[in-house]
Amino acid sequence: MLLNGLPAEQIPLTDRGLHYGDGLFETLAVIDAEPRFWDRHMARLARGEAALKLPPSDKTQLYHEAQSLCQSTARGVLKILITRGSGGRGYRPPETCEPRRILSLHPWPDYPKHWFSQGVRMRVCETRLSRNPRLAGHKHLNRLEQVLARQEWQAPEIAEGLMLDEQGMVVSGTQSNLFVIVEGKLMSPDLSYSGVTGIMREVVIECAERLGLPLLIKQLDLATVKSAQAMFITNSLMGLCPVASLDQHHYALSGIPHNLQQVLSESIEQGV
Amino acid sequence: MLLNGLPAEQIPLTDRGLHYGDGLFETLAVIDAEPRFWDRHMARLARGEAALKLPPSDKTQLYHEAQSLCQSTARGVLKILITRGSGGRGYRPPETCEPRRILSLHPWPDYPKHWFSQGVRMRVCETRLSRNPRLAGHKHLNRLEQVLARQEWQAPEIAEGLMLDEQGMVVSGTQSNLFVIVEGKLMSPDLSYSGVTGIMREVVIECAERLGLPLLIKQLDLATVKSAQAMFITNSLMGLCPVASLDQHHYALSGIPHNLQQVLSESIEQGV
Repeated sequence: MLLNGLPAEQIPLTDRGLHYGDGLFETLAVIDAEPRFWDRHMARLARGEAALKLPPSDKTQLYHEAQSLCQSTARGVLKILITRGSGGRGYRPPETCEPRRILSLHPWPDYPKHWFSQGVRMRVCETRLSRNPRLAGHKHLNRLEQVLARQEWQAPEIAEGLMLDEQGMVVSGTQSNLFVIVEGKLMSPDLSYSGVTGIMREVVIECAERLGLPLLIKQLDLATVKSAQAMFITNSLMGLCPVASLDQHHYALSGIPHNLQQVLSESIEQGV
Repeated sequence: MLLNGLPAEQIPLTDRGLHYGDGLFETLAVIDAEPRFWDRHMARLARGEAALKLPPSDKTQLYHEAQSLCQSTARGVLKILITRGSGGRGYRPPETCEPRRILSLHPWPDYPKHWFSQGVRMRVCETRLSRNPRLAGHKHLNRLEQVLARQEWQAPEIAEGLMLDEQGMVVSGTQSNLFVIVEGKLMSPDLSYSGVTGIMREVVIECAERLGLPLLIKQLDLATVKSAQAMFITNSLMGLCPVASLDQHHYALSGIPHNLQQVLSESIEQGV
């Protein structure tokens, strides 16, 4: 692990990331020593820094540190965590803050192959996501709702949990974004109030646009999601993964447009 | 600072408190080497641990550690922070977790005397509190909303910001609870959806009950709060502090029941 560019295992107990979740993170796929979709991750990080009024981190410096950490990694996961640093009185940040950056490398999660060939099983979580437009979209460190949701099940055959917001609208998985095909149209939940605007979600949306596939970003209720012919989830590590079932409800894997999967594979191959 | 009972300045970078805000905290007044309202703080901590499915911390052990830290403190602030510890895959907590406990001692905040004699100035924050009944009431480590709200103003003459929830209901200050007197009745916002159930709020409620003062805990909109004759805020450090104004709106200090202030002072004196 690197803390501000230097090998470290610990962080000061005064850090505001620990006390308030006052910071952001990014999770990147590393393939052949290269963090994938780097510019997109850095763009989201920059949006988050602006929202939290954090001074923008030096993205070139981050890239050099990421490269030094990943240089002998064939396949892995890079986590970049930025905090506001120490200081301030209570919630009030210090006038001049010195953010900390933490880079850590993790093993590649070996998703079972059948997830992609047969689709995954999902369940609807009881834990809801709260709505706050000022935080929505950003990958900040306030993640207790996802922790509580992920605690709801232990069964390994359930790959992911679907989370609704406080008003009953479908938002995302606990660690993935969501797409459905309803009456032949690709749809994905509007994330103006909750959720994280995933990098792979962004790539899927661009691929759909390139292919001229109709795509709707809108508030989706659970009934609509259950009425879908097909569903898939996305994140930076798994790419696109079809959903076979949501609780007792089943989806057709054939409903996911083949050309979308193909074009997305090519984008992931390029990784930019 | 004490980490799991031992002097420390740092915490492992893998701690889930840092990564997800996966933990809780308490802020206690220390007077004459004694943390005040100990049992009440520990009861709230226990409720939070149950809500987060954290193994309950050993409150006797915590008390011994608190005493050793505070033994020569005439007046100070004790912060107790509990995290779920390290481990787990992503949001999912490990099957057996080893929580960390961090105790730190801070200087007493020297609130200006005129705050209490003349009341404080408050402003309405733009940042809203999200609603989530599973997290409401608990003093967990997901505090970005309060950080964003506290960033909204720098003027030292504004003592506190009023926070509404996403539906426009009044919840609390950024670091205090709120009471208003409307048509002679004491009222305080219902915290079923947002906010922290403050220890001093609990003590005020009990004092009002003992005095037979009518008290309503209910959803309050901003219009009702502005129509109040009097308003005051509470927390464990300041006790009760009258509010002189909210933005352009003024309150009468004389509207706060004198017997309530007196009985509360006695309770604070006892500190149990």
